[in-house]
Amino acid sequence: MDELRRRNVDQSTDDKGSKSEGESDPKEDIDSEEDTKIDTTPVVASGTNKSPEVLGSALSGLPERWRNWTIRGIFTLVMIGIFGLIIYWGPLALMITTLLVQVKCFEEIINIGYAVYRIHGLPWFRSLSWYFLITSNYFFYGESLVDYFGVAINRTDFLKVLVTYHRFISFCLYIVGFVWFVLSLVNKYYMKQFSLFAWTHVSLLIVVTQSYLIIQNIFQGLIWFIIPVSMIVCNDVWAYLFGFFFGKTPLIKLSPKKTWEGFIGGGFATVIFGLIASYVLCRYQYFVCPIEYSETLGRMTMECDPSPLFRLQEYTLPSSIGSVASLFGFEKTINMYPFMLHSLSMSLFSSIIGPFGGFFASGFKRAFKIKDFGDVIPGHGGIMDRFDCQYLMATFVNVYISSFIQTSSPQKILQQVLNLKPEQQLSLYYMLKEALVNQGILAQH
Amino acid sequence: MDELRRRNVDQSTDDKGSKSEGESDPKEDIDSEEDTKIDTTPVVASGTNKSPEVLGSALSGLPERWRNWTIRGIFTLVMIGIFGLIIYWGPLALMITTLLVQVKCFEEIINIGYAVYRIHGLPWFRSLSWYFLITSNYFFYGESLVDYFGVAINRTDFLKVLVTYHRFISFCLYIVGFVWFVLSLVNKYYMKQFSLFAWTHVSLLIVVTQSYLIIQNIFQGLIWFIIPVSMIVCNDVWAYLFGFFFGKTPLIKLSPKKTWEGFIGGGFATVIFGLIASYVLCRYQYFVCPIEYSETLGRMTMECDPSPLFRLQEYTLPSSIGSVASLFGFEKTINMYPFMLHSLSMSLFSSIIGPFGGFFASGFKRAFKIKDFGDVIPGHGGIMDRFDCQYLMATFVNVYISSFIQTSSPQKILQQVLNLKPEQQLSLYYMLKEALVNQGILAQH
Repeated sequence: MDELRRRNVDQSTDDKGSKSEGESDPKEDIDSEEDTKIDTTPVVASGTNKSPEVLGSALSGLPERWRNWTIRGIFTLVMIGIFGLIIYWGPLALMITTLLVQVKCFEEIINIGYAVYRIHGLPWFRSLSWYFLITSNYFFYGESLVDYFGVAINRTDFLKVLVTYHRFISFCLYIVGFVWFVLSLVNKYYMKQFSLFAWTHVSLLIVVTQSYLIIQNIFQGLIWFIIPVSMIVCNDVWAYLFGFFFGKTPLIKLSPKKTWEGFIGGGFATVIFGLIASYVLCRYQYFVCPIEYSETLGRMTMECDPSPLFRLQEYTLPSSIGSVASLFGFEKTINMYPFMLHSLSMSLFSSIIGPFGGFFASGFKRAFKIKDFGDVIPGHGGIMDRFDCQYLMATFVNVYISSFIQTSSPQKILQQVLNLKPEQQLSLYYMLKEALVNQGILAQH
Repeated sequence: MDELRRRNVDQSTDDKGSKSEGESDPKEDIDSEEDTKIDTTPVVASGTNKSPEVLGSALSGLPERWRNWTIRGIFTLVMIGIFGLIIYWGPLALMITTLLVQVKCFEEIINIGYAVYRIHGLPWFRSLSWYFLITSNYFFYGESLVDYFGVAINRTDFLKVLVTYHRFISFCLYIVGFVWFVLSLVNKYYMKQFSLFAWTHVSLLIVVTQSYLIIQNIFQGLIWFIIPVSMIVCNDVWAYLFGFFFGKTPLIKLSPKKTWEGFIGGGFATVIFGLIASYVLCRYQYFVCPIEYSETLGRMTMECDPSPLFRLQEYTLPSSIGSVASLFGFEKTINMYPFMLHSLSMSLFSSIIGPFGGFFASGFKRAFKIKDFGDVIPGHGGIMDRFDCQYLMATFVNVYISSFIQTSSPQKILQQVLNLKPEQQLSLYYMLKEALVNQGILAQH
């Protein structure tokens, strides 16, 4: 608390000293960011510019700016490679990765909380945060498992209990944590304890709920995961490149290194990338089929008759564009996958709103005077530094699917029906029959 | 921030001065709570002991302790009366009340945040919090409306759009708030702004999501709302009375006025009250029938063939109790409503775990050095002071219903089916028929 307050005061005097209020020179902002880094090294370990020694010595001839650029580039390629490998390993590997990334992000956020509130001597707090992480994962992952494997799980008696009472068990686990928190309250630390309690819950809200949405997206078909994730990566990379080479006009005070040139260049690159990537992925069942439990095969399957979204369709160009096209000898119609139109919405979101996830994270880092969330990835910072926009994007995709794509499928509802007791299944059958006859959809016989 | 820090320091010196660490005299704790009240009057308006002038002068002859007792008692009765009246007005009135209480609780919590972080000059913050409140209510209330009135709403084209894209619209509204927040960030206030952002979200998590659960409970039947709410009231009142007259042994440091005598006495009273109240309410369709949209009537209905839960059933007493009972000339069987067993679980939760909601709130108030959340109800404090345990209870009841009672009813699923497109309804019909024949539930013909 003392520490925080001192920083706060320092900062406001700095601000007044170095520039008039309301105006800001982006270069000075960058400088002050550098100061911040040095200032706060003791608060949270932040070592963005750390690089493996071998690399460091190999690149020692280059000027600083280019050295960072190279390290960042190499590790971007390494990450993209790892990402490709995980996709190759299949959906289970992807889900495990999502879980691991989630845990790491939670750790990074919660560690900042510890550092900010200096928890030396705060009873139980570390255990409590992790307990809440486990509880909420149990709840959310359980919910998807129940949704997708309900019928299969119901075959085993022991698991059946876990499924039937899933919410109740999760709630009891949460209540245990809640009571534990109340009992751990100590007069001297009330405020820190409540602040960290809130901090934990906000982290859970950001990290756990959204990674649950990611898992749901994966179940809809790998394409709903791969395209958005790579759009964010693409946007980051191209915005960085455009900014690096052409960047002049500062975009927002919050992130002084971001420029309008990068923002716009990144946006164009993302839209083009999205169209091409969708065109390529739409051809493979492996990417477009939802992951479903097949009653007949008795196992998960990713084979399907692809939905119309992923089948080539002829679109007639609007007459004005069409006539121009025909002038140059092009056809007035184009063949494309309807999914490519959805990819367009996603690339617009990822390049217009996506960066705000990054600005939010920058603001957060500046609020608590840290340079990065961690130092796991050389040249990039912590895991959370790379995933700040991914979470926002995943939520968008999830909502997008549930609003525009997934108009509750008959298969899904059938699963619910088969979870009922036999007599209820039968009564539903007759009610449905009656309703269909009344609507004139089914002929009476 | 200054203010907070000063208080923090004051408190720890106080603690060291007045008593040795780890031990605490409950009387001293009460005293220090009194100090706190005076100390913090400027932070948040808190006037628990304020009473309407008429009452004040009428009771001026009584000693302080009894005067508070009387005021508290009178306003408890007034509140119970209002509660009865609202129930008489029906479910719509109840839902509106839930909404109003929710808004008031949010206001109280958020006002504390404002006071704690001293937001003078913080741009946009008040508007932003209220914007998020409206957005999240739009989302959650919309979700229940879609669930319960889906079929009816789908008849109007305009509303149909709102229903189909409900999540997407809510998400867009939220994103607008999110972008607005990022754009409103000002270098000088980063930390306060992020803290208040978190504060707002935690408040929404506590207040909005849980009042959404309350609404869901009401739809299950008024009894699932009335019994738990009155259990908490009953437990509060009797714990207060038992504590007032017999209280000696302090229960927990956090709430120095609470005693073991009150805790246990309140618990017994709640169990007995729960059994009697359930026995009475179970007889009336008005209380036990779920609120459903009737396709045939074209409106909401609360008439039904009560579920077996609410029909008298003969239970044989366990042999040991049975033989004792027969010694005294009682029957070995008793007639009761199965719901009464559920009421037992609820009363146990409300009297054992429920108070932890109160301890949590006390801890919170002490952490931020306030006596009460507000001063709306004379003798009681703010609305949030009365509803702290209600929210926890509502969540318990909601989870309890979904785990033990509501094993997804055929009616509910039928509603989902009828929301599908006609051809999907038909395809589901045939899939279901096939599945039922395969399971041997339906004869092939």
